[in-house]
Amino acid sequence: MPKFMDIHRGMEGLTAEQLNAAHQADLAIESQEGVHFEHAWADPDSGDVFCLSEGPSADAVQRVHERAGHKADEIHQVPLSL
Amino acid sequence: MPKFMDIHRGMEGLTAEQLNAAHQADLAIESQEGVHFEHAWADPDSGDVFCLSEGPSADAVQRVHERAGHKADEIHQVPLSL
Repeated sequence: MPKFMDIHRGMEGLTAEQLNAAHQADLAIESQEGVHFEHAWADPDSGDVFCLSEGPSADAVQRVHERAGHKADEIHQVPLSL
Repeated sequence: MPKFMDIHRGMEGLTAEQLNAAHQADLAIESQEGVHFEHAWADPDSGDVFCLSEGPSADAVQRVHERAGHKADEIHQVPLSL
């Protein structure tokens, strides 16, 4: 299954509670698209959030994020990982 | 120890061997700065590479990358992670 790294910009001041709520919203519906969100990391100073997922396509990843209320600004398929 | 996500742009066409060589170059010298590079992910189509590390500061992470020959374009401290 392809892996994806996506980036959300503009989330300055994000709290741990807000990140967890957003991640839980993704997890609650991800099976609709055959996606699984594995990890998320956030820089509340710059407002950048990074999500690592597996799924059938970048479009499927984006559909989950959109339905959960937080469309990604960039989605990168990452076929290489270490 | 703080965590960091850094981004290298412009690495279009990167191969698995090149990513591994770059990562090994970081690992070989990271202890000079008290940094540890945990993971790396690459999108050879867009040329974006993402590295996850732990270390004392973003400057310390950048010094390792610079000495290894591949300065990062962005380094984000990510105090929030899931």
